[in-house]
Amino acid sequence: TRSKLPDVGTTIFTVIGQLSAEHNAINLSQGAPNFPCDPQLVAGVTRAMQENHNQYAPMTGLRALKECIAQKIADLYHTHYDVDSEVLITASASQGLYSAISGLVHPGDEVIYFEPSFDSYAPIVRLQGATPIAIKLTVPNFAVNWDEVRAAITSRTRMIIVNTPHNPSGQVFSHADLDQLAALTRNTDIVILSDEVYEHVVFDGEPHHGMATHPQLAERSVIVSSFGKTYHVTGWRVGYCVAPAELMDEICKVHQFLMFSADTPMQYAFAEQMRDPQGWLMLSSFYQRKRDLLQTLLADSPFRLLPSAGSFFLLADYSSFSNESDSEMVKRLITDYGVATIPLSAFYTDGTDNKLIRLSFAKDEATLRAGAQALCRVK
Amino acid sequence: TRSKLPDVGTTIFTVIGQLSAEHNAINLSQGAPNFPCDPQLVAGVTRAMQENHNQYAPMTGLRALKECIAQKIADLYHTHYDVDSEVLITASASQGLYSAISGLVHPGDEVIYFEPSFDSYAPIVRLQGATPIAIKLTVPNFAVNWDEVRAAITSRTRMIIVNTPHNPSGQVFSHADLDQLAALTRNTDIVILSDEVYEHVVFDGEPHHGMATHPQLAERSVIVSSFGKTYHVTGWRVGYCVAPAELMDEICKVHQFLMFSADTPMQYAFAEQMRDPQGWLMLSSFYQRKRDLLQTLLADSPFRLLPSAGSFFLLADYSSFSNESDSEMVKRLITDYGVATIPLSAFYTDGTDNKLIRLSFAKDEATLRAGAQALCRVK
Ligand SMILES: CSCCC(=O)C(=O)O
Ligand SMILES: CSCCC(=O)C(=O)O
Repeated sequence: TRSKLPDVGTTIFTVIGQLSAEHNAINLSQGAPNFPCDPQLVAGVTRAMQENHNQYAPMTGLRALKECIAQKIADLYHTHYDVDSEVLITASASQGLYSAISGLVHPGDEVIYFEPSFDSYAPIVRLQGATPIAIKLTVPNFAVNWDEVRAAITSRTRMIIVNTPHNPSGQVFSHADLDQLAALTRNTDIVILSDEVYEHVVFDGEPHHGMATHPQLAERSVIVSSFGKTYHVTGWRVGYCVAPAELMDEICKVHQFLMFSADTPMQYAFAEQMRDPQGWLMLSSFYQRKRDLLQTLLADSPFRLLPSAGSFFLLADYSSFSNESDSEMVKRLITDYGVATIPLSAFYTDGTDNKLIRLSFAKDEATLRAGAQALCRVK
Repeated sequence: TRSKLPDVGTTIFTVIGQLSAEHNAINLSQGAPNFPCDPQLVAGVTRAMQENHNQYAPMTGLRALKECIAQKIADLYHTHYDVDSEVLITASASQGLYSAISGLVHPGDEVIYFEPSFDSYAPIVRLQGATPIAIKLTVPNFAVNWDEVRAAITSRTRMIIVNTPHNPSGQVFSHADLDQLAALTRNTDIVILSDEVYEHVVFDGEPHHGMATHPQLAERSVIVSSFGKTYHVTGWRVGYCVAPAELMDEICKVHQFLMFSADTPMQYAFAEQMRDPQGWLMLSSFYQRKRDLLQTLLADSPFRLLPSAGSFFLLADYSSFSNESDSEMVKRLITDYGVATIPLSAFYTDGTDNKLIRLSFAKDEATLRAGAQALCRVK
């Protein structure tokens, strides 16, 4: 069979997930919490099902939920989205990214993105017959060099994909980054696609500098976020995106045929849960404690940790004690030490090997302790 | 903004759904049941959530659910699918169709499909840079003329999309249809994409003649089905597709980036529910009673009903009393008589007007009676 993605294998999250399960490893790989969600949220889904909210939701989503989202964004970031024409409920942030890229990127277009990156961006762009243009971020701080971005922009550039807080590096944009991005795209028709699924997981008292905090960027941005990451239910497959109406129209044209609508009872439950802003306001301190715990527990390990300013992730450098490749190291950690992580090389299309592995601290304390104990033994 | 789908507006299901809600109309439009699902299924979702099955499911789906599907297909249709490499859980049949077409259809390919058809097929094909080739089925029996299909096949034909039982006509394939399709595609690399979401809704004691019942077709087919249609929960967004491994590989390459995985607690609940084959075995007689009731109630209406051999739908001919277009008629039925249906013209890309509207009988008895009463008054 001809393939549209001949170089693509199985996503790293599946590969490591299976290997981890086979070896019954302590799982610090995927950004999936292993602790329970709020029982009230479960009760909300049950109630919605019992009240017979089990059929197709409206295509763009339940109005009550879209109102909560617009309100939250107005409160936190001071940008106003029209509930009817600028908010879309998606069946996961992944699916939102796919709908947005499919709706807006045409064959022959170029799309700039940054590597290391979540592994779906480049393949989704290629599936549109467009060209992904990777700009490499470099160790240790993975900051964007905006001059490089300026140099990469051509008349074919249709979109720039950004991600803050950044998976896998844990770095975040500053307000100065946003100003630079705004300056670069002023008077162009370049769209920003901003993956902000960790918007509520920013550490050390910093605010989240997302596209909605910057009016000039908001007017050309599609912002994608996730209920799974915010409410500890990554398996419920509900996310959302917001964008100016003229961009949203094109996204919806695709979305209505790709997905039609997202899960109905879960949308009811999230609409209820969103009445309490503590749900997202407490998230930064909640995950900061987990980050700090893992850092403390690994202080005496052979790994050198890079700083993490947001997200569920920490990068760990093993160059001081091994010459193995990232994926060799990850395999050995699973088979010999019973702990699963993700090789950073999987986040580069060319497999760049930085001697770094990614640890997810979205885990309960016992798992973090057990995982750290195993990592401290590594030689 | 440039558009990838310049001619596409909002899907008819959204347009009619909104108009229907505004007028508080009796809703015989979408193929969405308005009666409760089995409380055991609700309990199954609740139990799964309480047991903390709330994180990412495996990319291709929960193994227990995939096993049930393979077993059901083996029992009913005598074709065996490998659970690990040939069964994929999708987040709705719509999303399965999208993943299948995206994975298998390349720019420049031609895809043959039949009109009237569900409104997503042609746009999804166009989004791949491929050309949808419509073959018109004609009133009153919407049978496929296989000679026309033969004449439409070229060296660029990559896929033929079929749908049995057929939305919107309610017609079904016979075994002879399958033989013809098999003969036409023998020794080609044409893939059949078969939308069989109404596989368990076939009337008058007939068996379902799906692709899995015909070994020569099964080996070149992607079969898409739906839990929403089978278990009265169209808002839960879980479906599946089965295909030979070499086709499934390409579908999964797209699927893992488009969706990653489907809803976890719902998958657990369906896996439990599928232990009882009565869930699908009773469906034909259940919906046949609804079809028969609606036919009886409309016997004295001005509409002439076309026969329905499967699906949730009946077509009603109004040519004897009106020259309005299908969409004019549908609008008038909503505004003047308070009953919502779908214009058949919406299922043709060129808007062919046959003086037919589509009625959904996937409704409780009170709704069918109220809807029929309104339709009997129409002048
Ligand atoms: C489908 S994996 C989603 C992102 C994530 O959880 C990760 O990077 O680990
Ligand atoms: C998203 S609409 C799905 C199909 C259906 O229910 C219909 O044709 O009415």
